[in-house]
Amino acid sequence: MLRYERLANELGSLIASGTLRPGDRLPSVRRLSDERRLSASTVVQALRQLEDRGLVEARPQSGFFVRHASAPRPEPSARTTLESAVQVDVTQRLVRILQTSTRPGMAPFAAALPAPSLLPVAALHRLYAGVARRHPKLLEGGSHINMDEPALVRQLIKRSLSWGGPLAAEEIVITNSCTEALALALRAVTQPGDTVAVESPGYYLMLQLLESLGLQALEIPTDPRTGISIEALDLASRQGKVAACLLVANASNPLGSVMPDDSKRRLAKMAAERGFTVIEDDLYGDLHFSESRPWPIKAFDVAGNVILCSSFSKSLSPSLRLGFLAAGKHRAKIALQKTIISGGTNPITQHVLAEYLESGAYERHIRSLRRTYERQVAAMQDAVSRYFPASTRLSQPQGGFVLWVELPEEIDTMQLYEKAITQNLAFVPGELFSPSGMYRNCLRLNCGNPHTPEIESAIHRLGSLFSTSQDQISG
Amino acid sequence: MLRYERLANELGSLIASGTLRPGDRLPSVRRLSDERRLSASTVVQALRQLEDRGLVEARPQSGFFVRHASAPRPEPSARTTLESAVQVDVTQRLVRILQTSTRPGMAPFAAALPAPSLLPVAALHRLYAGVARRHPKLLEGGSHINMDEPALVRQLIKRSLSWGGPLAAEEIVITNSCTEALALALRAVTQPGDTVAVESPGYYLMLQLLESLGLQALEIPTDPRTGISIEALDLASRQGKVAACLLVANASNPLGSVMPDDSKRRLAKMAAERGFTVIEDDLYGDLHFSESRPWPIKAFDVAGNVILCSSFSKSLSPSLRLGFLAAGKHRAKIALQKTIISGGTNPITQHVLAEYLESGAYERHIRSLRRTYERQVAAMQDAVSRYFPASTRLSQPQGGFVLWVELPEEIDTMQLYEKAITQNLAFVPGELFSPSGMYRNCLRLNCGNPHTPEIESAIHRLGSLFSTSQDQISG
Repeated sequence: MLRYERLANELGSLIASGTLRPGDRLPSVRRLSDERRLSASTVVQALRQLEDRGLVEARPQSGFFVRHASAPRPEPSARTTLESAVQVDVTQRLVRILQTSTRPGMAPFAAALPAPSLLPVAALHRLYAGVARRHPKLLEGGSHINMDEPALVRQLIKRSLSWGGPLAAEEIVITNSCTEALALALRAVTQPGDTVAVESPGYYLMLQLLESLGLQALEIPTDPRTGISIEALDLASRQGKVAACLLVANASNPLGSVMPDDSKRRLAKMAAERGFTVIEDDLYGDLHFSESRPWPIKAFDVAGNVILCSSFSKSLSPSLRLGFLAAGKHRAKIALQKTIISGGTNPITQHVLAEYLESGAYERHIRSLRRTYERQVAAMQDAVSRYFPASTRLSQPQGGFVLWVELPEEIDTMQLYEKAITQNLAFVPGELFSPSGMYRNCLRLNCGNPHTPEIESAIHRLGSLFSTSQDQISG
Repeated sequence: MLRYERLANELGSLIASGTLRPGDRLPSVRRLSDERRLSASTVVQALRQLEDRGLVEARPQSGFFVRHASAPRPEPSARTTLESAVQVDVTQRLVRILQTSTRPGMAPFAAALPAPSLLPVAALHRLYAGVARRHPKLLEGGSHINMDEPALVRQLIKRSLSWGGPLAAEEIVITNSCTEALALALRAVTQPGDTVAVESPGYYLMLQLLESLGLQALEIPTDPRTGISIEALDLASRQGKVAACLLVANASNPLGSVMPDDSKRRLAKMAAERGFTVIEDDLYGDLHFSESRPWPIKAFDVAGNVILCSSFSKSLSPSLRLGFLAAGKHRAKIALQKTIISGGTNPITQHVLAEYLESGAYERHIRSLRRTYERQVAAMQDAVSRYFPASTRLSQPQGGFVLWVELPEEIDTMQLYEKAITQNLAFVPGELFSPSGMYRNCLRLNCGNPHTPEIESAIHRLGSLFSTSQDQISG
């Protein structure tokens, strides 16, 4: 790397990390040249490169300033029409995405995964060592073989106090992941062929689950701010054909929307009246950007037919393989099915998590992690605003770390994905968030990584790819 | 406990453990009285009690001798008729058994669980601590989130060399348990409503899996020595209506039968010709009583449609929660379904198992464990022969640690179960091993625990319960 590039990257990362903010003046050419022992022309070359990248602007007589991001982009358009229930068929296309997007060297915009550097991996490893020493009989099994560890159940209940709990110990089932929790919940309350209402756009893994279990998906319009449309769900469930509603009420995936309390209350009531089950994935609930923790729908459950599923894979480690569900009146059936189709959950891992929660370390960790994710999402929004085609729309997530991007209508993101990966650029094409194949001009971007110059440059290249494609189509 | 009882128990446990063997003379009354500083009458009282328990016999002028077990009991009768496929409905009855049989104080004859004292729990705990320290990045996740750890896959391949392997790395999928492996295999090769051939009697958890997945069970007569009838399976699969055959070829549960190699070869060939899948649970394969390791059917697989499932829950710990399958040509589909319905498997646990296998500790451990289980099964056979009704038949397991008992026809073990648990005696009634409700006069006994005087006494009481019931019915 040349000297001027090194300086440009260094300054770029100060801007990306927010150390230098929009409107800040950069040190003068003379000062940079003195301090870094570089020639003035090298410094100027670095600043020109930053200018080319859209990160700084030269103001006559004043020097270089960090640019304000382009005007904020409008949010994605909300759908309002209600479609019919459909068979899901996304898995094969997803396999292609997941296989190619995890190749070494790919820009990490596809899977919603946090950078390892943001996770308390060292502390968790220490806890494994400590728990294995301090509880030398956990692996004995015996009659405890399928028992959820009371120490962990207690901590989960304690945490639920922050969102309108407490959960009841009797309704909790420890699982091997949030995914397993969702699968168990769906199997407990549906039969193959049943219809499940989902958000649109909605998380592709949920769609895969429906596909795998032979369930029909009914896409419910979902607002980029307020989440699933209660009115549409009301309409759809009137004929009693909805067996369950599967959704992410807090920081939905991909929109980042949070349902207002009133909508949550209405949904819980509707489910009780119409006899369908609400299965909510609260994986991002702790990763809110608002001051206080948004409540899950579970907090408004009156009839025991809201099942809350979650894990710590987005905040602690995707490899712990430990989730849970609070199953309301479906507890006995779900616990039994868990025994039949997978068995219990490793007690050492259960204790590791229990002790991490109990020590207060989790609370401290997510307090700072929330801010980190918020900053990374903001930096990605800025970058997308700078580099993507002019009429691009962009979500304003209220939690989590993914961004939903709506490109001009003529752009087909699934088609462009193949071109993108040849440039080491990955993302998840929008059509995978809809069983009926909507959102062909949309994509989801993972913002789980610190916004480095490499990330900035990758977004720049991705923007160019989309702009070029648009030009070709229009021209 | 009175002095004579303490002495009787002590001598009883020497007999149970095989330190004193049938035909051995016990020390004389004088010698016991001198050595233990007990009065002669206390010693005689102890010996009389052992006599009452059927463990020793007095020979005039010679003293007390350890009794030979009663004449060996005949093996259970083998069914030969082929039934039609049926819906499975065992789960609710099983729930009752599993809930009551795990109450504190119950004699441990129900679930097939080893005594914690037989498991290398301390070594595994040490490995957890060591692995967590030595591999500090395992929980980072990243693109490895769902990857099976190559270190473990390598060890599994290496172990397969002892039974006709090697397995191919590409066909292995690490799972959260053998149960999860079986469930994944079944879901990959069947649709709800399909027919699956099972052993009769066959393991109830397999029947529950079929019930849970909406599959029909077709009971195939199974010989107490040679396992599933290839002839019956041949007949049953001729019309092409069998989607899969789910079985335990090595030390079947509950019979302890081992299929001869020739049967295994024929089954693998038949499956290839007729287009059905063989799903074998090899959980007990390492726990054989024979000199050499019996091969799984997988070793005879020619067409990639034998799926081998296993774990270490019967040899290392029921709480590790780590199993695997070798999926042949179904690998891609199963790995994908695993991602969709449960996700990956904890990498720390994978490394713990890999290192335990690699160190040679596993091989040493099972070498001694096999002998222990064999001894415990033999002691239980002796006890059952002593105390159970005269025409009782008894399996001669060739591995594992369960015993299948066939009582006189008029006895209904499900009915007597309720009476048994009031006396703290648990077992699994025979009808739960048959979806069509055969084996009402049978039961399975777990022999996973050292044969203590308490165990002996519990079997005595269980035998009395059955004898009394028989008398009442006959009288």
